[in-house]
Amino acid sequence: MNYPNGKKKPTVRKTSDKTNKSFSNRGMTLEDDINTTNNYYLAINKAVIHKKPTPIQIVNVHYPKRSAAVITEGYFKQASTTDYNGLYRHKHIDFEAKETKNKTLFPLANIHDHQIKHMELIIENGGICFLIIRFAAYDETYFIQAEKLISYWKEKLNGGRKSIPYEIIKQEGYLIPFQYQARVDYLAIIDKLYF
Amino acid sequence: MNYPNGKKKPTVRKTSDKTNKSFSNRGMTLEDDINTTNNYYLAINKAVIHKKPTPIQIVNVHYPKRSAAVITEGYFKQASTTDYNGLYRHKHIDFEAKETKNKTLFPLANIHDHQIKHMELIIENGGICFLIIRFAAYDETYFIQAEKLISYWKEKLNGGRKSIPYEIIKQEGYLIPFQYQARVDYLAIIDKLYF
Repeated sequence: MNYPNGKKKPTVRKTSDKTNKSFSNRGMTLEDDINTTNNYYLAINKAVIHKKPTPIQIVNVHYPKRSAAVITEGYFKQASTTDYNGLYRHKHIDFEAKETKNKTLFPLANIHDHQIKHMELIIENGGICFLIIRFAAYDETYFIQAEKLISYWKEKLNGGRKSIPYEIIKQEGYLIPFQYQARVDYLAIIDKLYF
Repeated sequence: MNYPNGKKKPTVRKTSDKTNKSFSNRGMTLEDDINTTNNYYLAINKAVIHKKPTPIQIVNVHYPKRSAAVITEGYFKQASTTDYNGLYRHKHIDFEAKETKNKTLFPLANIHDHQIKHMELIIENGGICFLIIRFAAYDETYFIQAEKLISYWKEKLNGGRKSIPYEIIKQEGYLIPFQYQARVDYLAIIDKLYF
């Protein structure tokens, strides 16, 4: 662990904090923060990592004259892979990000079977695969290697616990440093673990 | 060139051919063929390559009681990257696929500036990047390395031609073999070029 823990912050998000230029993370969703981080990595040509678009089942499209096509009926589909992937230092990067309001554990129900299967394939094929978990109550964001997530997932299948305790994540995960531009600077962890 | 060219086929697509179990490719779109190919690669654990979902700007969502959320207003957004990416033999794979009805050339207007920029970044960061072009009139599908596409793109910016002639694609590209399950077996080309 490289960073101090336990500095508890209010659990209520304040949208006004979005314009706060301090190093506070309050008010931004994890997705916002990761997108900002990825844009920064791209801008400095450090990595090419993008969020995949949300998969949508399009049922009806209306084509008005002289204007853009409008989707008038669509449904959210469950993603079959993870949310983010890309390329860093010649390595394939693949990860999922989850935020929880739970203060004591991360429920494994947040991750689907096919996502675990996908993570196994990424590892087998030589990619770097992980999960980013934010505990909103503590404003702490952790990097968990997919290998560890998969092992807890398999314990669950064999009748084990249905969650990973916060204390275990603190021990086995890596607190992701918060930087002004790289708000979730997960490549700092990857540098230490894989290079 | 490993495969015979010039076996002209009808330009009209027959949807009834979709159930044809021969080695003919007629009636399937390039996207269908690539998705089938990627599913096959996944099934035999050869590669983990997926099409990214179409990016959609969601404007309105309706939440009916006791049923799934319905998107009632959405718009297609232009993709900022390429359509497909993934992992093969520890290498990051990234490509775009385009089908043309043109018999003599591939119009460069089919590729956007930001896609070219993305391709440059993938190459700089150690990925394998390319374009798959199908000439529907000839039922021929070619693999063009992104480096070559980028060089034609830059010539265009400097006042050069706005397309790549079919004859050049035949010379500088690689005809992708058509297999029953791997309908667009582009990994066969990657094996030869990069491994």
